[in-house]
Amino acid sequence: MYYEYPLTIGKLLTQTLYRRSTNEVVYGNTRYTWTEFYERVKKLASGLESMGVKRGWKVAVVDFDTHRYLEAYYAVPMMGAVLHTVNIRLPLEQLVYTMSHAEDDVVLIRDEFLPMAAKIAPNVRTVKGLVTMSDDGSAPSVPFPNTHYYEDLLSSSSSAGYEFPELDENTRATLFYTSGTTGMPKGVWFTHRQIVLHTLSVVIGFANSASPVRLDPNDVVMPLVPFFHVHCWGIPYVAGALGQKLVLAGKYDPARLLELVAKEKVTFSSMVPTILNMVVNHPSAENYREALSKWKVTVGGSALPRGLADKARQLGISVMSGYGLSETAPVLTLGTPLGDLSALRGDELLERVMLKAGVPIHLVELRVVDSNMRDVPRDNRTMGEIVVRAPWTAREYYKDESMTAQLWSGDWLHTGDLAVMDESGYIRILDRIKDTIKSGGEWISSIQLEDLLMRVPGVMEAAVIRAKHPDWEERPVAIVHPKEGVELSEEQLREHLMEFVSQGVIAKFWVPDRFIIQPEPLPKTTTGKIDKKPLREKYTNLLLQSQS
Amino acid sequence: MYYEYPLTIGKLLTQTLYRRSTNEVVYGNTRYTWTEFYERVKKLASGLESMGVKRGWKVAVVDFDTHRYLEAYYAVPMMGAVLHTVNIRLPLEQLVYTMSHAEDDVVLIRDEFLPMAAKIAPNVRTVKGLVTMSDDGSAPSVPFPNTHYYEDLLSSSSSAGYEFPELDENTRATLFYTSGTTGMPKGVWFTHRQIVLHTLSVVIGFANSASPVRLDPNDVVMPLVPFFHVHCWGIPYVAGALGQKLVLAGKYDPARLLELVAKEKVTFSSMVPTILNMVVNHPSAENYREALSKWKVTVGGSALPRGLADKARQLGISVMSGYGLSETAPVLTLGTPLGDLSALRGDELLERVMLKAGVPIHLVELRVVDSNMRDVPRDNRTMGEIVVRAPWTAREYYKDESMTAQLWSGDWLHTGDLAVMDESGYIRILDRIKDTIKSGGEWISSIQLEDLLMRVPGVMEAAVIRAKHPDWEERPVAIVHPKEGVELSEEQLREHLMEFVSQGVIAKFWVPDRFIIQPEPLPKTTTGKIDKKPLREKYTNLLLQSQS
Repeated sequence: MYYEYPLTIGKLLTQTLYRRSTNEVVYGNTRYTWTEFYERVKKLASGLESMGVKRGWKVAVVDFDTHRYLEAYYAVPMMGAVLHTVNIRLPLEQLVYTMSHAEDDVVLIRDEFLPMAAKIAPNVRTVKGLVTMSDDGSAPSVPFPNTHYYEDLLSSSSSAGYEFPELDENTRATLFYTSGTTGMPKGVWFTHRQIVLHTLSVVIGFANSASPVRLDPNDVVMPLVPFFHVHCWGIPYVAGALGQKLVLAGKYDPARLLELVAKEKVTFSSMVPTILNMVVNHPSAENYREALSKWKVTVGGSALPRGLADKARQLGISVMSGYGLSETAPVLTLGTPLGDLSALRGDELLERVMLKAGVPIHLVELRVVDSNMRDVPRDNRTMGEIVVRAPWTAREYYKDESMTAQLWSGDWLHTGDLAVMDESGYIRILDRIKDTIKSGGEWISSIQLEDLLMRVPGVMEAAVIRAKHPDWEERPVAIVHPKEGVELSEEQLREHLMEFVSQGVIAKFWVPDRFIIQPEPLPKTTTGKIDKKPLREKYTNLLLQSQS
Repeated sequence: MYYEYPLTIGKLLTQTLYRRSTNEVVYGNTRYTWTEFYERVKKLASGLESMGVKRGWKVAVVDFDTHRYLEAYYAVPMMGAVLHTVNIRLPLEQLVYTMSHAEDDVVLIRDEFLPMAAKIAPNVRTVKGLVTMSDDGSAPSVPFPNTHYYEDLLSSSSSAGYEFPELDENTRATLFYTSGTTGMPKGVWFTHRQIVLHTLSVVIGFANSASPVRLDPNDVVMPLVPFFHVHCWGIPYVAGALGQKLVLAGKYDPARLLELVAKEKVTFSSMVPTILNMVVNHPSAENYREALSKWKVTVGGSALPRGLADKARQLGISVMSGYGLSETAPVLTLGTPLGDLSALRGDELLERVMLKAGVPIHLVELRVVDSNMRDVPRDNRTMGEIVVRAPWTAREYYKDESMTAQLWSGDWLHTGDLAVMDESGYIRILDRIKDTIKSGGEWISSIQLEDLLMRVPGVMEAAVIRAKHPDWEERPVAIVHPKEGVELSEEQLREHLMEFVSQGVIAKFWVPDRFIIQPEPLPKTTTGKIDKKPLREKYTNLLLQSQS
């Protein structure tokens, strides 16, 4: 009889398991091949089943990036359950909220987070079992019924007897929460089909390219996006599908990351700019030039500032941008040179292609529109909101009809991001709509100002926020954190920006009214991006006060 | 509201149209960009609609490889109709049978095939309209109601007003007939979803590879597989999805193909071995060394003989094998080096990887099994039948339940091909089950013998067939067609094979009983493969006679 082939996550491993890829998954001293990985995945599923996990159950993971987390990425959806990747950087109250909202049934939790479990248990009443994990091999003692140590659960399970069920491709596979800037985090979920199609298109986006950051089947991949963050941008599924060597970094520490790149011969990573900034500015970075010269890095989450890109290039790193959001699984665009643009080289390639969000990957329909949903011209100047359709967009905010209706207003997914488009269709993100500064009725892009400020040699981090103004409604204020031992002055920063005014890069009225130099690093969101919310709260009345 | 994204053929063009790719589609003196192509596709759909074409109607095309055929590849399925790619090489009786069996509603027909139309019309009663096509721009006069000249139909249609409907991805998109060796051709049809998934996976198969035949987004593609043959192996959809320059060769003439490769800077083609053989043995091939040195060629349809591969390599052409069948859309495997095998070079790479059928592309589940559906060992020696599952396999033989049941026996699609598998999972096709020779209970592979015979310098073509034998049931007979001006002797061919016997490559009993040297080229199937059926008919009693 005809076999109805479903697009389910297990199918992604077909070629890798068939070839018996000898490439390894590496976490600390643990290393095993993809074939051995699959044996453990089967044992995990079998173990979870013995704990009572059924189709549709929510299995939450509270961990850093480890091989066990990777195993859960496959085993949980493949058995028909839903993987909830818990954001461990959320404040405890919000973390408990997400688990309670998700109605998690079983929790896989790393030993150092167990103290939280005491707080979670009474508030997340749906939890029916715990699986504890530790790096040192010791099983923590937990006074919770149906608690098992991860490795014991696997040892007591047989992979031989276990067979994954055939699932409908529209079965829910994953669930996670996107930290809004206001209110409680919102949940988004994705189906098997969505993840499979996302994986295929991301592979094509990276592999079918003349880019210096082209993905090669022999790449050694080390994701530096947390596993709890939007499917780790899809890397766990891409590496599994291609059977690539996959290095898992655990907690991110810049010195150790540099060591890992060299030791494991890592050639491909993805990360937010903050992580790249930490790595390239680490005092020992210069000692790793040889390894770094083979390192291809895709940056997303925030725009890649030119200054940071240049610093990375000086160390030999190849860099490129990408763009997406939690609601889109996440990848929408990549800064890969296609068509005529693939003939560009050096700075021109960087500016016109690779530092931009780029072009949509295959199957993504993307528009930049004004408030009446009319496409803006491709003039690289007219701003509009990015709206998209793709086979892997979130259907809804979980249990939130009103936010869902906003997200899908006009039958297109609204990204909340402002961008311009050039004649080839390459987009540059100018700002989150909510971060934009509206001065006298005109938009000012905080991202572009931050990019220019980052080019001042002594600047480590920069954020531009809006502050209330009596005459102009809003005006920009810059907050700058200098590199260690560097003295910066407000005048120096203003003069730096005035140079770009005279070059016509920005308008004069874009120059911030105030430059605040602060010795402490800027606050970060749970995913490592600069968090402007507390800065806005602190400085929103600054210009009103100074004028009064 | 949430947008349910269907996997339909129109979506394949998303990135190409978005980028406004400036790469051209070229046929003779006609050349236009993919953006202009899409305008014509909309006009064609609009024109067909004005002729009465409705969803589910069968629109047949009778043409060589032209830009108009390409337009039909998109317009017909995108409007919800079914594209029937008529095999113009079939004997007229069988051609009429296929059109009658398909119940074609409208026929797009090239002027030189119009004499056929007179035969088709009375036998295919379902036809409600004709669209005539010609290279010279003249509209032939045809006494059939509702007949339009293609270019007139387009000029009278507006692309501005036409919008393609949103279709369910499981809508039928294509239909064609596979010429069986016995009986009438069998129909297979494919849905939009199947074609989209096939396209994505074929792109990954070619692009995610360390192969010398890796597909690059800047490749200039010239398919040398007829458009009527299994979606032209998917090239029209791949090139459209990637927005590559696409050169259409019309009728295949080796001298003109060589000219086209040079003139249009073609870098990527796919073809059956017969076409490659014609091209590399053409007297003027040597003059095109520079252009040929940039030519990457994928060979499928039959095994790529080592001798032919060597000849191609001497001219600088990079060659690789692939494997698939009409029933599988067609691609199943590619001879790309993955994992450890990507470190191989030269002859070893060729023998162990690139001349083999290779490994399954993504999502294809492939097994080599014995008659009890047990997997054969990965020893490169034990033969078994290839059975597969993939998202793009034919659901059935159209209106033929009994053949469908055979095809899907045991819930796996039976390819009818015998193969061996090595330890890395690379498969080598040994024979069609029906072409294999069973001598004294042991299998002899006709393909392997043909491969060895092709290495004799003077051999242009070789076929090994089974002939009845009084003692051994069947014995092999070789039919060899020498290159022009070359004298070959039976003794010389036998001695050549005996060398491989002494090297242990083949067993002594594999050496054919007779070598027939014939001055005429060997008969070909409609897709250009050597057709063994008439040879078998001619020689089946040869060994019985010679013994009597």
